[in-house]
Amino acid sequence: MADHRDDAPDAYRELLEQYERLTALGGAQGVLSWDQQVMMPEGGNPARSKQLSVLSGLNHDLMTDDVVADALADLEPADCTDERAAVVREIERQHVRAERVPRDLVEEISQTSSEALQAWEEARENDDFEAFAPYLEELVDLKREYAEHIDPDRDPYAVLFEEYEPYIDLETAERVLGRLREELVPLVEEIQASDADLAAPFEGETFDADAQEAFSRDVLDALGYDWERGRLDTSTHPFTAGNQFDTRITTRFSEDEPLDSMMSTVHEFGHAQYNLGLPREEYGTPLGEARDLTVHESQSRLWENHVGRSTAFWERFAPTLREQFPALADATAGDLYEAANQVYPDNLIRVEADELTYHMHIVLRFEIERDLISGDLDVADVPEVWNEKMDEYLGVRPETDAEGCLQDIHWSHGNFGYFPTYSLGSVLAAQLYAHAAADIDDLDATVADGEFDALREWLGERVHRHGCRYTTPELVEEATGESYTADYFLDYAKSKFGDLYDL
Amino acid sequence: MADHRDDAPDAYRELLEQYERLTALGGAQGVLSWDQQVMMPEGGNPARSKQLSVLSGLNHDLMTDDVVADALADLEPADCTDERAAVVREIERQHVRAERVPRDLVEEISQTSSEALQAWEEARENDDFEAFAPYLEELVDLKREYAEHIDPDRDPYAVLFEEYEPYIDLETAERVLGRLREELVPLVEEIQASDADLAAPFEGETFDADAQEAFSRDVLDALGYDWERGRLDTSTHPFTAGNQFDTRITTRFSEDEPLDSMMSTVHEFGHAQYNLGLPREEYGTPLGEARDLTVHESQSRLWENHVGRSTAFWERFAPTLREQFPALADATAGDLYEAANQVYPDNLIRVEADELTYHMHIVLRFEIERDLISGDLDVADVPEVWNEKMDEYLGVRPETDAEGCLQDIHWSHGNFGYFPTYSLGSVLAAQLYAHAAADIDDLDATVADGEFDALREWLGERVHRHGCRYTTPELVEEATGESYTADYFLDYAKSKFGDLYDL
Repeated sequence: MADHRDDAPDAYRELLEQYERLTALGGAQGVLSWDQQVMMPEGGNPARSKQLSVLSGLNHDLMTDDVVADALADLEPADCTDERAAVVREIERQHVRAERVPRDLVEEISQTSSEALQAWEEARENDDFEAFAPYLEELVDLKREYAEHIDPDRDPYAVLFEEYEPYIDLETAERVLGRLREELVPLVEEIQASDADLAAPFEGETFDADAQEAFSRDVLDALGYDWERGRLDTSTHPFTAGNQFDTRITTRFSEDEPLDSMMSTVHEFGHAQYNLGLPREEYGTPLGEARDLTVHESQSRLWENHVGRSTAFWERFAPTLREQFPALADATAGDLYEAANQVYPDNLIRVEADELTYHMHIVLRFEIERDLISGDLDVADVPEVWNEKMDEYLGVRPETDAEGCLQDIHWSHGNFGYFPTYSLGSVLAAQLYAHAAADIDDLDATVADGEFDALREWLGERVHRHGCRYTTPELVEEATGESYTADYFLDYAKSKFGDLYDL
Repeated sequence: MADHRDDAPDAYRELLEQYERLTALGGAQGVLSWDQQVMMPEGGNPARSKQLSVLSGLNHDLMTDDVVADALADLEPADCTDERAAVVREIERQHVRAERVPRDLVEEISQTSSEALQAWEEARENDDFEAFAPYLEELVDLKREYAEHIDPDRDPYAVLFEEYEPYIDLETAERVLGRLREELVPLVEEIQASDADLAAPFEGETFDADAQEAFSRDVLDALGYDWERGRLDTSTHPFTAGNQFDTRITTRFSEDEPLDSMMSTVHEFGHAQYNLGLPREEYGTPLGEARDLTVHESQSRLWENHVGRSTAFWERFAPTLREQFPALADATAGDLYEAANQVYPDNLIRVEADELTYHMHIVLRFEIERDLISGDLDVADVPEVWNEKMDEYLGVRPETDAEGCLQDIHWSHGNFGYFPTYSLGSVLAAQLYAHAAADIDDLDATVADGEFDALREWLGERVHRHGCRYTTPELVEEATGESYTADYFLDYAKSKFGDLYDL
């Protein structure tokens, strides 16, 4: 196949040149933000906020520059091969959104987010929602204003949602979330009524943080993380950041909850593997960028849930765990598998949730943020509504806001519309894994043998190497030969948890 | 005193607004570069080079923007108080230089430097000058071209030197370096002929790297490093980077040469203390920026040589060292003082050099880089010329280029004209310290007591808080009441080493 850059018209070249600069600038923003969360001394925030805000403004300037508008106007459809058309589609989409928003607003959102991040960290530590509330109010207002600039005639939440998932519409997202709630709530009720008594070898024990880190590194080695292009660090909230040359993972270690860091390391590995699998020669074009958050989350969830919470995975790692942690000396692979899949409706924390109740945490956040943006809910009422919904969906009420509406970082970043992509991605993970399992000879056995190459290659071939060549629905078609569907996830959930809980 | 921003004319406000963006962007470049040297996995370079190059280009765009030219043109002298005049002087100087240089060249220099940095690291490791030579040639050509754009009628090396020290001319620098050579060479010869036998408690022992790090942290605690605005990490080449909110130090630990990391930590502390002492409310204006490299180096050398290599310092830290390192159990403060001041003309490495022969290392680099830029010396001949000069000035020839012309990072950054500021700064350090000692009651006793507040405050008051309010010569006048002079340094050197070596 010819390279999309060969013999390209001038307008196309100019477009790519500007986008290469945008990519580099975006990468710089990513490094500054990683540093802010992982390395920066706490006093650094005033300068860092300013740096990030200036970079946002420059990013906006580059994206709205006449060079982009002119190049887009000059390009003839006849000039565009499929690949070029994909590049143009992605740049044009971002350009059209950006040019509707004033640069001042972009800088203000960035500046406010940096300040809000620090306020959130302190508020969470002190369980003091009121200290965070003014920042949240400001961010809600700013983001509503932002959405109105992009399209004053549409639901602002739908406009914001497109920032994270541009090709699956909000109606589809709502339908999927609705179906998850509908089918998972009865399943969780059946589980609660079940007599099954799952092993809990981690319970009541403590686990040395250094040993946890060593184990995380062993797992990353085994999964095939490329340390020459990556790092593992700790941060308040685990995340992944980077590109095909350098993608870094963070995790956190709680001595009481070692499963938390194990699973979160595997989760972030999935994100990192996606970035690292993007074509290197396409760095700086949309073909070298990850598709949006649904697909990104499908990669992390596939590794976390379908690999990391599988019997095969625990068969592979049980001996290492027994060796590294005296408290687990008698734990069988089956015990560990059960522990990793215990359903806890009374768990308050999203990132510690099991595969089923997880989606109730998402539904709750989705409903709250949608109402915040529409103006149907005041910031001051968020704690109360949060606690009521927890009670309604999971039968448990947080005693503190730190364990309630202050637990997640997203709103302090102004990321309203982000949460639903977690569920959309989990659903896609199941669909992709089912196809991988159909294509790869005895996939479970390869996992139990610690051989992850076949799965990594399948994902690289079907998903990673395409970058933004396809829209989300097209990519699902390309990877699986069929449309996006929640069927696989629901089948998987019912079958897995049916077996575990003797339903 | 009225704030320079109060009731300022519009042109002045616009100038400041643009400079604030420039400062933030420069800060972002600093973080990316720190990360590249301290945290980045090795595979990350292709993306990082591009990011840094794009940021350089944007920096250039902002500096050459019409906003700056128009504001400068619109400002009436009558509008300018002394402080405003200083702000305008600094921005205008940078603007005039920048607008003469094409942006493409700026980006190319940045991109080439990033690539050269990696090539240098590998070349040094493999002792393979030829692998680095093409990068060095390219950087010499690019930097010569850069200087010619700024002023085709002047010595290009003098133009480059101004990048690092804009207010002391090259003739002055040459005169100071000449005087150092003239007076230090005979002193070193006398020392070599002396029968004095200085204590060498570190020799032949090894020192655990973790214990060295613990000691470095103890020293930084005692000196008063503000950890809420700083970090200590390791890198190939120790350096300091940051601003008044966040300034980070790096060092390195060699098990054979613990003095190396101890003194380099104290050195970098001096740099950090300068940045952290800049006025916070002036972040984003030249009044909140450090004066150039002569003054910066005066701060690091003052702490390294006048504090760190003093008898008082070793009195304070001898007990800690004896406790932390069994090999030093019998070392007295006097032994440690002698060890820290041993003159080794046969030492090959600049950053490990004693206070006297250090300047011969600088003279050598200065002569070589001046000839490289003028075209009188080919890159291919650098190793031979280097080795000959080492023989001539210090009576020793490196056996490898790794210990010779590949030892320093500067040329791989394209930083030609930087080295002389090390000697200029050492000279200024002695001048400042003499005045501090005259002003502070029994300064030596405070150091021996581990009380560094008085010295920190003196430097803060006399130097740090002024930012770029004054030119270099003005700042020296302001701090000491007299002109810049090498007298203090030479007196200090003769007296200190005369005592040590019974001359």
